[in-house]
Amino acid sequence: MTDLLWPGDHHAGDVFTDAAVADAMIRVEAAWSTALTEAGVAPADALVDPAALRALIGDGDLDRIAIEAESGGNPVIPLVKLLRSGLGESATAQWLHRGLTSQDVVDTALMCCSATAFAEIGGELTAQIRILGRYADRFRATPMVARTLTQYAVPMTFGLKAAQWLSGVLDASELLAGVRFPLQIGGAAGTSAALLELAGPGRDPARLYRAATEVAARELGLEAVPPWHSVRTAICRVGDASVACTDAWGHIANDVLTLSRPEIAEVGEGAGGSSSTMPHKSNPVLSVLIRRAALTGPPLASTLHLAAADAVDERTPGAWHAEWDTLRQLVRRTLVAARQTTRLLDKLQIHEDRMASRLQAAGQAVTSEQKSMAGIAGLPPAADYLGATQHLIDAQLERARKVIGDRS
Amino acid sequence: MTDLLWPGDHHAGDVFTDAAVADAMIRVEAAWSTALTEAGVAPADALVDPAALRALIGDGDLDRIAIEAESGGNPVIPLVKLLRSGLGESATAQWLHRGLTSQDVVDTALMCCSATAFAEIGGELTAQIRILGRYADRFRATPMVARTLTQYAVPMTFGLKAAQWLSGVLDASELLAGVRFPLQIGGAAGTSAALLELAGPGRDPARLYRAATEVAARELGLEAVPPWHSVRTAICRVGDASVACTDAWGHIANDVLTLSRPEIAEVGEGAGGSSSTMPHKSNPVLSVLIRRAALTGPPLASTLHLAAADAVDERTPGAWHAEWDTLRQLVRRTLVAARQTTRLLDKLQIHEDRMASRLQAAGQAVTSEQKSMAGIAGLPPAADYLGATQHLIDAQLERARKVIGDRS
Amino acid sequence: MTDLLWPGDHHAGDVFTDAAVADAMIRVEAAWSTALTEAGVAPADALVDPAALRALIGDGDLDRIAIEAESGGNPVIPLVKLLRSGLGESATAQWLHRGLTSQDVVDTALMCCSATAFAEIGGELTAQIRILGRYADRFRATPMVARTLTQYAVPMTFGLKAAQWLSGVLDASELLAGVRFPLQIGGAAGTSAALLELAGPGRDPARLYRAATEVAARELGLEAVPPWHSVRTAICRVGDASVACTDAWGHIANDVLTLSRPEIAEVGEGAGGSSSTMPHKSNPVLSVLIRRAALTGPPLASTLHLAAADAVDERTPGAWHAEWDTLRQLVRRTLVAARQTTRLLDKLQIHEDRMASRLQAAGQAVTSEQKSMAGIAGLPPAADYLGATQHLIDAQLERARKVIGDRS
Amino acid sequence: MTDLLWPGDHHAGDVFTDAAVADAMIRVEAAWSTALTEAGVAPADALVDPAALRALIGDGDLDRIAIEAESGGNPVIPLVKLLRSGLGESATAQWLHRGLTSQDVVDTALMCCSATAFAEIGGELTAQIRILGRYADRFRATPMVARTLTQYAVPMTFGLKAAQWLSGVLDASELLAGVRFPLQIGGAAGTSAALLELAGPGRDPARLYRAATEVAARELGLEAVPPWHSVRTAICRVGDASVACTDAWGHIANDVLTLSRPEIAEVGEGAGGSSSTMPHKSNPVLSVLIRRAALTGPPLASTLHLAAADAVDERTPGAWHAEWDTLRQLVRRTLVAARQTTRLLDKLQIHEDRMASRLQAAGQAVTSEQKSMAGIAGLPPAADYLGATQHLIDAQLERARKVIGDRS
Repeated sequence: MTDLLWPGDHHAGDVFTDAAVADAMIRVEAAWSTALTEAGVAPADALVDPAALRALIGDGDLDRIAIEAESGGNPVIPLVKLLRSGLGESATAQWLHRGLTSQDVVDTALMCCSATAFAEIGGELTAQIRILGRYADRFRATPMVARTLTQYAVPMTFGLKAAQWLSGVLDASELLAGVRFPLQIGGAAGTSAALLELAGPGRDPARLYRAATEVAARELGLEAVPPWHSVRTAICRVGDASVACTDAWGHIANDVLTLSRPEIAEVGEGAGGSSSTMPHKSNPVLSVLIRRAALTGPPLASTLHLAAADAVDERTPGAWHAEWDTLRQLVRRTLVAARQTTRLLDKLQIHEDRMASRLQAAGQAVTSEQKSMAGIAGLPPAADYLGATQHLIDAQLERARKVIGDRS
Repeated sequence: MTDLLWPGDHHAGDVFTDAAVADAMIRVEAAWSTALTEAGVAPADALVDPAALRALIGDGDLDRIAIEAESGGNPVIPLVKLLRSGLGESATAQWLHRGLTSQDVVDTALMCCSATAFAEIGGELTAQIRILGRYADRFRATPMVARTLTQYAVPMTFGLKAAQWLSGVLDASELLAGVRFPLQIGGAAGTSAALLELAGPGRDPARLYRAATEVAARELGLEAVPPWHSVRTAICRVGDASVACTDAWGHIANDVLTLSRPEIAEVGEGAGGSSSTMPHKSNPVLSVLIRRAALTGPPLASTLHLAAADAVDERTPGAWHAEWDTLRQLVRRTLVAARQTTRLLDKLQIHEDRMASRLQAAGQAVTSEQKSMAGIAGLPPAADYLGATQHLIDAQLERARKVIGDRS
Repeated sequence: MTDLLWPGDHHAGDVFTDAAVADAMIRVEAAWSTALTEAGVAPADALVDPAALRALIGDGDLDRIAIEAESGGNPVIPLVKLLRSGLGESATAQWLHRGLTSQDVVDTALMCCSATAFAEIGGELTAQIRILGRYADRFRATPMVARTLTQYAVPMTFGLKAAQWLSGVLDASELLAGVRFPLQIGGAAGTSAALLELAGPGRDPARLYRAATEVAARELGLEAVPPWHSVRTAICRVGDASVACTDAWGHIANDVLTLSRPEIAEVGEGAGGSSSTMPHKSNPVLSVLIRRAALTGPPLASTLHLAAADAVDERTPGAWHAEWDTLRQLVRRTLVAARQTTRLLDKLQIHEDRMASRLQAAGQAVTSEQKSMAGIAGLPPAADYLGATQHLIDAQLERARKVIGDRS
Repeated sequence: MTDLLWPGDHHAGDVFTDAAVADAMIRVEAAWSTALTEAGVAPADALVDPAALRALIGDGDLDRIAIEAESGGNPVIPLVKLLRSGLGESATAQWLHRGLTSQDVVDTALMCCSATAFAEIGGELTAQIRILGRYADRFRATPMVARTLTQYAVPMTFGLKAAQWLSGVLDASELLAGVRFPLQIGGAAGTSAALLELAGPGRDPARLYRAATEVAARELGLEAVPPWHSVRTAICRVGDASVACTDAWGHIANDVLTLSRPEIAEVGEGAGGSSSTMPHKSNPVLSVLIRRAALTGPPLASTLHLAAADAVDERTPGAWHAEWDTLRQLVRRTLVAARQTTRLLDKLQIHEDRMASRLQAAGQAVTSEQKSMAGIAGLPPAADYLGATQHLIDAQLERARKVIGDRS
C-alpha cells in the first residue's frame, strides 16, 4: 500500500493496511479458538492456528471480502463465511467464531494494529529524545534570537530551543506510554452469553469468562478487561495519543520552516526537496510533510470522540463504523510523521554563525528589556541575558534520561 | 481499490483512486502540450496525447512514483521524470511540463477527479429526487405521528416526511450545481512567466495566457480562470458541497434508523443486513453506512477550510499537502453514500398500517394541541389536523420538477 | 457584551448578543401577531408591536429567562410566559405565539441576527475590495520575490499579491451574496396545523399559509419559504459563508505575519501592538487576531454540519440545541475579523524599497527558472520575468468592479 | 453570566467567567509579587495581596480592559497598566509584573480557572459513580432487551447497562485524575532572564528560578514546572479530559433518549420538559442538553490541538490566542453537562415492568442465538442467557469502589 496523495506513506509499511487488518482478524479468531479449547468449551480438534486460517485466503479474496462487507455492514461476516467454507465439515469450522460477535473481532483487530503501530512510534520517539537531548546539550550556549509573535524578543540559545522541542516529545512519549490496548470480547451484546451456553451447565460464569479472555489476551498481547463495546475510551485514547505526537512534531516542523526561510537561514533540512521547474530550489520537504500530518490529525481524532459520544444501545449504528478507517488513517499518518521527524532531526543543519550574526544585528531590539529590568533593579546590565537557560535545559535532559532509562 | 474498513467503498469504483489521479495528471500534461503547440509556443512535434503518455507507465511505476514523491513533496516530480525518460530525446520530452509547476498539475488533476465524481453524485441526486417525489405524492395522505425531541407531537403524513427529505436533497442538488471546476495554471508562482519566456519576445502576455489556458481548459472540460494557487476556494467548495449532500442523506438515514426500530417498525430497509452470530437479525445496514459518511464528512471539510485559512506566500507549506488525500477521501465517500442512499430510498419498505395504528394508539398525545387551539378559536376541533400539509408537499414537488427539468 | 478572552470582540457591538437574540425573538412574535391579524385569523385587538413587548422585559428578566430556559430546553417558553403574564387578560396575551412552536421562534431569530451581521460583514468586504483594488493597481509594477514552500521562487509584484488577496475576498463576497435568510414557520411539526385550526373552517390552507408567512417574512425582512425545521441548510450556509470570509482574511493575515518578520520587513502593520515587558516591540496584532478567527472558525462550521447530519424526526434532540451558540459565536467572530481586516488593509505599510532590495539580493535564486526556460526556447532571457502579471491583476480588478457595481 | 443560547449555563456559576479570569490574573500577579519578595529579589514593601489589587478594579473596568486588550492582543497589558496606575508611585507599582510576560499571566490564569472547574467536575463524577454503582447493583437481575444497530439482539439486564455507563464514567474519572495544572512562568521568551537581571549579580540562576516558581505555584495551588510556552500539552490535556467526560455522558444521554421514546418507555427523565405549544409533552430535556455538549465538545478540543500543532517561535501568532475562549467554553460547558448528568441519573425513572414485558414480547428475536449455540454444544438451552453478566457488573463495581475510595 502506498498512497500517491500522501507522500511518505510507504514509511508506514504494512502497518494497519487492509492485509494487516485481515491478518489481525484472523489472529483474533485463532486466539479465540485457543481460548475455547483451553477453557474446555470446544473440543481439542477445534483448535486452529493463524497460519492455517491465513492459508485459506487466496488472491483476490481480500477484495471480495471488502465488497461483501457491505451487505452485513462489516468485514467479519464474509471473512468467517470464507474461513468456514475453507475449513469444510471439520470441528474447526463448526467452532470457529463461536461465542464472538463481529464487533469483538473488529475492535480487537483495531487494538492489535494500533499496538503494532504504537510500538514503532514509540521507537521513533525514543530516537528523537536521544537526538534532541544531544542538541540541547551541545548547543546549550549557542546564542540566537528568541522570537515572539514573529518579532525579535530577547536572546536565547539554540540548546534551549532544542530542549523545548524535547519537552513536547517527552510529553507525547509519556502519554503514549499510558495508552492501553484492551481485548474486546463480549459476544452479541456484551454479556458473553454465547460462551456460557456453549460451555454447558455447571460452569462458573465469572471463572470461565476470565479464563477464556485471559487466554485470548495472552495470545494477542493485549490486556484482558471486561467488554467495552459501547464505551469507546480505548479508541479515543489511541487517537488522542497520536495527536499528542503530531502536536509535538508540528511545533518542530514549524520552527524549521520558519528558521530555514532564506532571509533567516539559521537551520536547514539536510537534503531539501527539489522543484519540478526551479532547479535551484531546496524545499524543506520533511517539515512540510510533518506539518501536513499535524494539521490533519486533530479533526480525525475529533471524529473518534464524536463517535464515542454518539454511542447508543449495545452497538452504535454508524458511529462505530465511522471509527475504523478514521483510526487507521490517523495512526498510519502518525507513524509516517514519526519516521519523518526522526530523519528531519537527525539531518538538521544548524548554522551557529547565522544565529550569532542575527543576534548581533538585532541590537537594541533584543536588549531593551534587559536595560529596563536593570534600571528597575538599579544595577548595570549583566554580561548576558540568558536567565535560567542552563537550568531549564538540564531539567528537560533529566526528564529525558528518566524516560529513556525506563525503556532500556 | 476497495477499502476493507469502509464497506461499500467499491461503489466509488475507480473514481479518484491513485490510478485515476495519475491518469488525470497525465491528461493535464497532455492538455498543456496541446495548449503550447496550439498557441505556437512549442513546435508541432512536441504535441503528445494522453494515450502515449499512459503507455509509458508500467506495472509498479505508480508505486515507485508514490514512494519517490516524498523527496520533492509531491508526485509530479517523479511522474514528469519518468515520462521524460520514456520519451527519450524527442521534442515531446523537451517540452513536456514546460511552463507548469507541480501545483498546476496536482490542483488541476484534483479538479478533474472531483468533476468526475460530482457528475456521478449529481446523477444519484437526480434519481433520489425522482424517488422522493414519487413518495411525497403517493403518501401525501398517509397519516403518521410526527415526533419532536423523541416524543409524540401532532399528526403528519408520510408524504410530508418524504417532502422534507426531498427538500434537503434539493438543497444539496442546488449547491452542487453551483460548484465550479477551474483550471489551475500559473507556473512557479502564479505569473505564468515561464510560458511567456518560452514564447519569446513579441507576444502579448494577456492574449497568450488566455489562449493557452483556454485550450487546456477545453481539453480537460474545466473552466479557464486566473491562477488561484494560494486561494483555495475551489477546493473548499467541493468539500462544502460534498458535506451538504451527506447532511441531507444523514437526515434520511437517521429517520430510517429510528423508524425501523422494532418497537416502531413504520419503515424498513428492503434487504436488511445479517449478523455474524444472530441469524434472525435484519440490520438497517445502508442507513448505518450512510450515517457513517455523514458523521465523518464535516471534520474532513473543516480540514480543507483550515488549509485554506493557513495559506501563505505563493505556495503553502503543509496545508496544501493536507488537502489532497482529505479531498479525495471526502469525495469518494460522498459518492459511496450517494449510491447507498439511492438504493436505500429505492427499496424502502413503507408500512402504512403501522403508521396508522401508531397514530391511533397515540391518542391524546397527538390531539391535545388541536383541542387547545380550537378552544382559543372558540370552535369545535376540525376533522383533521394536518394544516397546510398538501401545500407544503406541492411546494417541494414544484422545486423538484424545476431541478429535474433543468437537467433533462 | 465584551469578551475578555477574545480581544476585539467589541467590534461586533450588540450584534447577536443575548439581548439582540431576545429582541429578535420578540420581533418574531410581533411579526406573527401582525400575520395572524392581517390574515384574519386573530382579531384586530390581538395585534402587538415589538416596542410594546420589549417594554415588558425589565432588568434581570433576560437572566431569568436564560435560567428558566433549561427546564423546557429553550428560551422561548419562559419568554412567552413572561410576555403573556405582562399582557394580562388581553386578546394580545391570548393570541401571542399561537400557531408557532419554540423552534419557529428560535430559528427565525437566528436568521434575523445572522442577516444583521451579514449586512455588516458585506459592508466590510466591499471596503476591503476597494482598498485591495487600489493596492493591486498602484503596486502592479512593484517587484518583489515570490516565495513557495518558504523559499525564493521567481519575481512577482506586490500588485499581483494584492490581486490574489482580492480574489479571495471576491470569492467570499460572492458566496456571501448567495446566502439566504429564510423565515421558519411550521408549528409543532412543520404542518402549520395550529394556524389552520385557529383560522377555523372554510379557509384554503395553501392560501392562508402563504398569506401569513409572507406577512411575517415582510415584517422581518426575511424570505418566505416552506418550513425547514429538520433540514438545516440555512444554518449551514451561514456557517460556510462565514468560514469562506475568514479563509480569505486568514490568507492575508498570514502573508502580513510573514512579510512583517524583522528579517523580511516588506510590509508592516500601521500601528503594531506593544508588549507587557518589552517596550521596543511592535507586534502585528491585527494579523494575529485575524489568524485566530481563521483557525477557530472551520471546526465551528463543522459542528453546524454535524448537527445538520444528525437531524431526526421533526425536531432533533441535542443537535438543534448545539447550533445556537455555535452559530452565534462563529458569526460574531467573523464580524470582528471583518472589521480588523479592513483596518489592517487600510493601514498597511508597504515597503517597496525592501521588496526591491530583497529581489536584487536573491539573485540567481529567482532567475534560474528563467534561464532554464530561455535555454529551452533557444533565446536570450527577456528583460523581465513577470509573465501575464498585468493581465492577471486586471482580471481581478474587473471582477471587483462588477461586484462593487452590483452593490452601489 | 448566563448564556441565553446555552440553557443550563448558569450551573457553571462564576467558573471561568470574564470576572473569574480577571481575578485569576490578579492572583497570578500577587503570587509573583510574593515570589519576588520571598526570593529576595524585590524589597519587602513591594509585596501586594490579591485583595489590594482587586480593590483597584472598579465598575466598568473589566469592559475597558477587554476593549483595550485588542491593541496589544491580550488583556494583561491594560490590566497591568490599570493596576500600576492605581498603585501610584509605590514600590508595589514599580515591581508589579516585573519578570513576567503577558503569556505567563494568561496561561497561568487559564490553569487556575481550569483547576477550579475540574474540582467541580470531579465532584460530579464521584456523585455519578455512586448513583450508577447503586443502579448496577440494584438492577443487576432486571432483565431487558439488548439492542445492536437499533434491532433486538439478546437479553441483558438493566444493571449491566448501568455498569457499562459506569465504566465510561470511571474512564473519564481516571483520565481527569491524571490532568496536571502547571504554573507557566518564563518571562519574555522562556528564559526567565528578567528575573535574574532583577536579582542582580551573584545569584544562582537554577536555585533562584526554582525558588521563585515554587513560591508562585504554592500560592496558586499549581504545579511548578519549567516554562512550557510553545508546548501546549497542558492546555490540550484539559481539553481531552473534558471531552472524555462528555463522551461518557453523551452515551448515557443517548440511551435515555432512545429508551424514553414513547414506543419504548423503559426509562424516563424524572421531570420532563414542557413545550411552548403542546401542553401534554414531557421532553427528555436533560438528555437533550447533555447530548448537545457531547456533540460540540470534540471540535473545540480539536481546535486546541490544532493550536498546539501550529506552535512556532517562542510565542505563536494567532494559535495561542485561539485557545483562550475555546478552552473556557469547552470547560464551562463540560461543567454544565456534569451537573445535568448527575441530575439526570439521580432522578431517572426506571420502568422494570416495561423492560420485562418488552423482552417477553420480543420472543424469538432475542432467543435465536441461544438456540443456535445450544445446538452447537449439543445441549438443551439453559434457563437464562445472561452469560457473565453478574461478573461483569461486579468488575465495574470493584473499579468504582477503588476510585471512590481513592477520593475519600
